[in-house]
Amino acid sequence: MGTTEDLAGWLTASRPDDIPADVTHEARRALVNIVGCALGGARHPVVDITIDALGAMFGPPDAAVLGRPERTDPLHAALLNGITSHVEDFDDTLPRNYIHASSPVASALLAYASANRVSGPDLVHAFVLGFEATSRLGNATYPSHYTAGWHSTGSVGVFGAAIAIGTLLGLTQEQMIWAIGLAGTQAAGVREQFGSMGKALHPGRAAQNGYAAALLAQKGFTSGAHGIEGPRGWAPVTSPEHDLSMVTDGLGESWELHVNTYKPFPCGIVNHPAIDACIQLHDEHGVAPGDVAALRLHVAPLVIDLCGKTDIHTGLEGKFSVVHGASVGLVRGRAGLREYTDEAVGDPDVKAVRERATREADDPTVTEDGVHVELELSDGRVLEKRLTASLGNLQRPLTDDQLSAKFRDQATLAVTAEQAELALELSWRVDELADVAQLVDATVPDG
Amino acid sequence: MGTTEDLAGWLTASRPDDIPADVTHEARRALVNIVGCALGGARHPVVDITIDALGAMFGPPDAAVLGRPERTDPLHAALLNGITSHVEDFDDTLPRNYIHASSPVASALLAYASANRVSGPDLVHAFVLGFEATSRLGNATYPSHYTAGWHSTGSVGVFGAAIAIGTLLGLTQEQMIWAIGLAGTQAAGVREQFGSMGKALHPGRAAQNGYAAALLAQKGFTSGAHGIEGPRGWAPVTSPEHDLSMVTDGLGESWELHVNTYKPFPCGIVNHPAIDACIQLHDEHGVAPGDVAALRLHVAPLVIDLCGKTDIHTGLEGKFSVVHGASVGLVRGRAGLREYTDEAVGDPDVKAVRERATREADDPTVTEDGVHVELELSDGRVLEKRLTASLGNLQRPLTDDQLSAKFRDQATLAVTAEQAELALELSWRVDELADVAQLVDATVPDG
Repeated sequence: MGTTEDLAGWLTASRPDDIPADVTHEARRALVNIVGCALGGARHPVVDITIDALGAMFGPPDAAVLGRPERTDPLHAALLNGITSHVEDFDDTLPRNYIHASSPVASALLAYASANRVSGPDLVHAFVLGFEATSRLGNATYPSHYTAGWHSTGSVGVFGAAIAIGTLLGLTQEQMIWAIGLAGTQAAGVREQFGSMGKALHPGRAAQNGYAAALLAQKGFTSGAHGIEGPRGWAPVTSPEHDLSMVTDGLGESWELHVNTYKPFPCGIVNHPAIDACIQLHDEHGVAPGDVAALRLHVAPLVIDLCGKTDIHTGLEGKFSVVHGASVGLVRGRAGLREYTDEAVGDPDVKAVRERATREADDPTVTEDGVHVELELSDGRVLEKRLTASLGNLQRPLTDDQLSAKFRDQATLAVTAEQAELALELSWRVDELADVAQLVDATVPDG
Repeated sequence: MGTTEDLAGWLTASRPDDIPADVTHEARRALVNIVGCALGGARHPVVDITIDALGAMFGPPDAAVLGRPERTDPLHAALLNGITSHVEDFDDTLPRNYIHASSPVASALLAYASANRVSGPDLVHAFVLGFEATSRLGNATYPSHYTAGWHSTGSVGVFGAAIAIGTLLGLTQEQMIWAIGLAGTQAAGVREQFGSMGKALHPGRAAQNGYAAALLAQKGFTSGAHGIEGPRGWAPVTSPEHDLSMVTDGLGESWELHVNTYKPFPCGIVNHPAIDACIQLHDEHGVAPGDVAALRLHVAPLVIDLCGKTDIHTGLEGKFSVVHGASVGLVRGRAGLREYTDEAVGDPDVKAVRERATREADDPTVTEDGVHVELELSDGRVLEKRLTASLGNLQRPLTDDQLSAKFRDQATLAVTAEQAELALELSWRVDELADVAQLVDATVPDG
């Protein structure tokens, strides 16, 4: 026996009814979030580039792509879904291992479900298993794997895609062992790609290659039996230190979806407390941009290191500027994808506030999860906001309504408001659908 | 500047005329060998399994697959060529880094050339560059990369495929930097797969993913600029110790194709001296199986460790049995793929000799490159053969005629003798072809 065999045994014995109701609800939340992210990223230039480069290789148009008019073979649909759902860095995060597990797993599943009839309960079951295995493999190899330079969303997520698709295919235990092995021997993606399009390729390839691993295993493509734990298997090769008991201990007792988090803003997480505080000031006081005399952000030192930029001109630069995030939050009362465009960065109201904004790491009581904001108005009044837990953290999770708002904000970049509402509604009740293709179809732009 | 930029600069400045005539001849030899290997592996069950599993995903049938009747999109053709050319472990080997570089590089190129018009000189140029870069990256990271558990034929070969296709596409230096980065972030394949079909997946995916990296880069899919050497780039992440000066020093002055080797027999290389010696005894003495009283193999200790099996029943077991290789060599005067089938292992003549064969590590003067064979006949005579350099080594390379014989032996497993002759002839003059598709087409079985 070994980790691979034990894990495969548990996975192939699992049935949809084994998923507790609270886990199913967290799966719904994760799916609402990731479908929204795929729609938010669907018009990113990287998608056109990928289709331009690889379109001549596309197979029969059996699958729809989330948020896109093109149809393609399911493996390429998985690739495209993985790219779109991660490219804006707006997808879910497991704070324990930094993996964005939904992107590789759901991207493969929704491509499969577009081309094959899959019921809601079966899809949720497969998603939960793929997510669970990804996060556990991530925990077992963290921080060694990530510190070595792997982008674990791809290099661990590939297992989740293989397991999710393997679950829908009804693989035997032996086939699941092969699928896991074939996933592990395709695991890839390095952090050198952070800041380039290459980063989004990682969950895309993880979805596509994990999916293929399951298809190959089903037909008898063999793998070494110890794909995870073998002396030359994935864990020893990629993670000098690891504790594989974390992959299998307590399977079915605790669920990793419970420790998943959803980003409220599409920028570096260290900016979130300042943005959150400024949105609260907007909502509570409705300050006009012209009335702002000074916006003083007292932040943790890491915020200055990672997102200290003040002289910015593009939407991309805005993602690395805490003063931009705070300013746009104060002016617009929101900080979605539309607030990180070149247009938003150049918006005269936002610019006026940003030019009066400062960020200093001058208050040792402010942690990375918090912020202290002083908003000085032209009449001399000073409004203050102090936060100690950031919105979107496990301590302050996004509510279902906040996830819906995030979905609408992103989805309407790709489809009409009416379509967005339908897709949102179907995402929330994905586990009741007779055929999940209905949800995928709802995300396809009209015309 | 850095390794990636320097390498990309040299690659994109290179022209077909820059390849010296002796390097072109070695490229011909490598191509004759790898096309033969692809034909020898074309009927392996793994190919049917792969087509069965992934056929529904295949794109337009723009490319032929070496030795197969199916046509598919070029990326899947690259995958299939990579699998067939490596699955019998009969392809070329770089003794300095254990990489089988031709499989990933030529598999991608011949898939491309089947779907796009490519001249012989352009193909040879692209092959030489892809091969050169693969071997140099292998040298720069050996032994660290291999010892860590990577199957470098896949995890290094992916660069060669990207560079070869990128050369045909005429990428700019910036695009080549991206292609290299996108190759490195897809690099995969672990040694846990040795002994399973997963091993052959590695050069297949390397060919396919490297090819895709070049296509993506051409259309503007960006990558980090330091894909090889960046702190979280391929070399630091996969190879704790490396010397990247070996990638770029002396480019264009020395050529890695000159240190490439070709296996004469499709089994573990440690068996080769014994097989070679027994074939020589066969050729010199023509001993009848019934006249063999004893066949005593005095071998290096490693031969016993790796290939000491004596009680064997299948062709696969035969690959790990030095007494089988020696016996079949003595009886048939050859040891090709046909000598490693279940039928050959069960052949009464071969079996009779094998049962009288022994292998002992009892002579300290015998090195891993050598053997001392004593053949005792029923009339009491003892014939001896002592070898100190193994056929196929750099010291005793296969001649062009021996490569042709190896080609015919493999090719006739997939096509008629007449077709095999045509494909062989076209392979030898690949650099003169106006359109390399002619060579690929010649390998497709009739009907």
